Amino acid sequence: MADFVRPRTLPGFQDFLPSRQMARLELIQRVRTVYERHGFSPIDTPALEYREVLLGQGEVEKEIYHFVDDDDNQVGLRFDLTVPLARVCSEHSKQLVWPLRVYHCANVWRAEKHKPGRFREFAQFDADIVGEPAVWADVEILTMVHRTLCAIGMSDSLIKISHRGILQALIAKAGIDEQQSFGVLRTLDKLDRLGWEKVRLLLGNAPQQMVDGIDAPPLGLSTVAVDTIERFLAIRGDALDQLAQLVEFFHGVERADEALSDLRNIVEALPANDVPADAFCIDLSIARGLDYYTGMIFEAMLRSAPQIGTVFGGGRYDGLVGRFSKRSLPATGASIGVDRVMAAMEMLGLIQQRPSTAEVLIVVFDDALRPECFGIAAQLRGAGINTVLYSGTRKIKHQFKHGDDLGVRVVVLLGSDELNNGTVQIRSMAGEFVDKDNRSKQTEVPRERLVPEVLSLLGRGE
Amino acid sequence: MADFVRPRTLPGFQDFLPSRQMARLELIQRVRTVYERHGFSPIDTPALEYREVLLGQGEVEKEIYHFVDDDDNQVGLRFDLTVPLARVCSEHSKQLVWPLRVYHCANVWRAEKHKPGRFREFAQFDADIVGEPAVWADVEILTMVHRTLCAIGMSDSLIKISHRGILQALIAKAGIDEQQSFGVLRTLDKLDRLGWEKVRLLLGNAPQQMVDGIDAPPLGLSTVAVDTIERFLAIRGDALDQLAQLVEFFHGVERADEALSDLRNIVEALPANDVPADAFCIDLSIARGLDYYTGMIFEAMLRSAPQIGTVFGGGRYDGLVGRFSKRSLPATGASIGVDRVMAAMEMLGLIQQRPSTAEVLIVVFDDALRPECFGIAAQLRGAGINTVLYSGTRKIKHQFKHGDDLGVRVVVLLGSDELNNGTVQIRSMAGEFVDKDNRSKQTEVPRERLVPEVLSLLGRGE
Repeated sequence: MADFVRPRTLPGFQDFLPSRQMARLELIQRVRTVYERHGFSPIDTPALEYREVLLGQGEVEKEIYHFVDDDDNQVGLRFDLTVPLARVCSEHSKQLVWPLRVYHCANVWRAEKHKPGRFREFAQFDADIVGEPAVWADVEILTMVHRTLCAIGMSDSLIKISHRGILQALIAKAGIDEQQSFGVLRTLDKLDRLGWEKVRLLLGNAPQQMVDGIDAPPLGLSTVAVDTIERFLAIRGDALDQLAQLVEFFHGVERADEALSDLRNIVEALPANDVPADAFCIDLSIARGLDYYTGMIFEAMLRSAPQIGTVFGGGRYDGLVGRFSKRSLPATGASIGVDRVMAAMEMLGLIQQRPSTAEVLIVVFDDALRPECFGIAAQLRGAGINTVLYSGTRKIKHQFKHGDDLGVRVVVLLGSDELNNGTVQIRSMAGEFVDKDNRSKQTEVPRERLVPEVLSLLGRGE
Repeated sequence: MADFVRPRTLPGFQDFLPSRQMARLELIQRVRTVYERHGFSPIDTPALEYREVLLGQGEVEKEIYHFVDDDDNQVGLRFDLTVPLARVCSEHSKQLVWPLRVYHCANVWRAEKHKPGRFREFAQFDADIVGEPAVWADVEILTMVHRTLCAIGMSDSLIKISHRGILQALIAKAGIDEQQSFGVLRTLDKLDRLGWEKVRLLLGNAPQQMVDGIDAPPLGLSTVAVDTIERFLAIRGDALDQLAQLVEFFHGVERADEALSDLRNIVEALPANDVPADAFCIDLSIARGLDYYTGMIFEAMLRSAPQIGTVFGGGRYDGLVGRFSKRSLPATGASIGVDRVMAAMEMLGLIQQRPSTAEVLIVVFDDALRPECFGIAAQLRGAGINTVLYSGTRKIKHQFKHGDDLGVRVVVLLGSDELNNGTVQIRSMAGEFVDKDNRSKQTEVPRERLVPEVLSLLGRGE
């Protein structure tokens, strides 16, 4: 009779079951704490927006989920958090505190072709300072990125810093036409993946078949131009060395001045901000694919797991609200791909897999003892201990099995003897106080000692 | 030249600027903490689902946002969190710990006709115990609801409890046809809004024009049936009194037995769970409009602001996964309308309006002092103090104005004198240490006293 629906998610979408969602919320909480320490405040915006808000008028279609709603509006699901931020800054300008320091953690959606490991729904965590043109805002962002990486157990990260102004100056110095600059940046962005030899071919005049796997045709730059880029990329050393070499390289190229000054301020300020010298570097090969960056750009990766790629990226983008008004609004920010960081943390074993939030299970022998168990549960919970009171009526053996499944570290139980004596039995499930036969053991304690004993077993002291 | 897009949200959608989003996250955090104390674990599911998962096959269309995606799938935005939970329970059965205690805080979307104050996107916060038929699971839910209301400053709430089994027994006793039972429940659900006189007309044979504003035609119940319902609703008194009267009222109606036993267990267990007797009552007039409830049902409202309506509701619904499999899976749960609770908290003044997360602003006199300011910022942040380091280059007066805008309670500043002396100036912005002219005052402290002095000014002790 019944026609069952097959329970399943759409390709590219995923459920987060307790173990992973606990880790995800913990990650988000840690990031939030760091951001708030830096005086950033949260915002949220709708998942659905007018399609013209998302795309701008006359802009090309991006890979967004869009449809016509019942009011005949063209609407779409946001594909990033930057466009909604730009809208908020324009729409609520008078209600916001300027310069604005905000963070936004929310899902975004991309109607991309589905590939394994690529998701169509994923959480982003952005932080931005809007309305402040000074480079010190960039320094704040980079400092916060370092602190965040430390807070999520990734102090081994390296923040690679560059500057769009330097790249623009390079393009000028190499005599490359302005119109080709974005193509050059996009090609340089592939350095990491392809290496210089292939990128060199893509920049120059290589026959297309030589550059396998790349869809764009070679840019056709002159040999002189490509050589200039090669010399630029060969600038290595520690940050201050590199700056000295860059000053020499760009001698006479005025448009490099501001960018070089920015980089110098950043490189000098970070150590004063307690960011160790080995936690960041100037890396002239990073370009960031997006067209909207205008100043400092950065990417952070894990030294111990470079294969994961960029876990944190961002930079300055001073054209933020350009689509909404002619007002100019400088902005600088950082974005974390929450689910990519999660994947990295899982790979690196930084996530403690726990099956549930529960720390303690109270076993219930029979219904006559239930009122006493209610009192015990209230006492433990009142002391901040995550406690499951067994709510069913199955046998004790099954209840202990349930405690194992939940991953609780302590089971509390009482029978009529304990009730009469004003005591409870506490059993450690975690291997502490194990007897000589290596079985977990239980002990009887007076009711008034229950909370301190349980806290001690949980390793949370008294 | 430029064709600007007007920055705006869709009707029925809203932005959360810092002040409100801070309060919202704080509310969510408090609820989470209570739920985790009770051993509930978080889950999350996609916003987009197959439309047939949301609706079931052949079911009538509900007010959901739906469209056809690029892969030609019929998809829709979830309209509640119960259907996704049912899917998760069916799809991932083997990876979950049973009985399952989960919570889920996420947005849902309703493509309803837009009315002021009604939103098309809103956050729900659900908690459910799935897989446990015993009434003790209902007791856990009700206990947790009470604790949650206390944790969000609404200890003045009243939880009204009833039972679908009692209402079904009433329908049997009143001789009403089974097929009309849902119509009767929906009509009783309007009691709160319409009062008994109008509901009586809707249940009976009143000519339609008499019952203004109601779209459903009268149900046409017999006078005897309506009188039976009236006698039922007249059962008042404290919970145990009401139970005694209900036992008498349903004498000989066997199908009332289990429901009466459930209610008795609930009413006796709640005080043992530290839920005060005046925090709950049996209210036979609540019916819950949704058709899926099968056992205990409840609604919580604020005594001090009944006009806000139900802030928390739920109950037992044992047919949860019926659309996905023939397996029977009992469930009981509670749902908070986060944004309705927020509105209530705003109305009751329970929300502290703060313009930002920042507690301290560091004023920067000039760039030469900036490295020292970086160190101060790192020190304060390291001590858990939310600190904005002024990142711009504007005048001191402007910087103080910015501190006011941010709502910071302390400003820290230093000039070259302080730098040489190893001290800083601390200025209270909040009225503590005010001088005789009632101006906020500032004091000079050694660098090593900075953190304790600031903590003390923030009221956070040493």
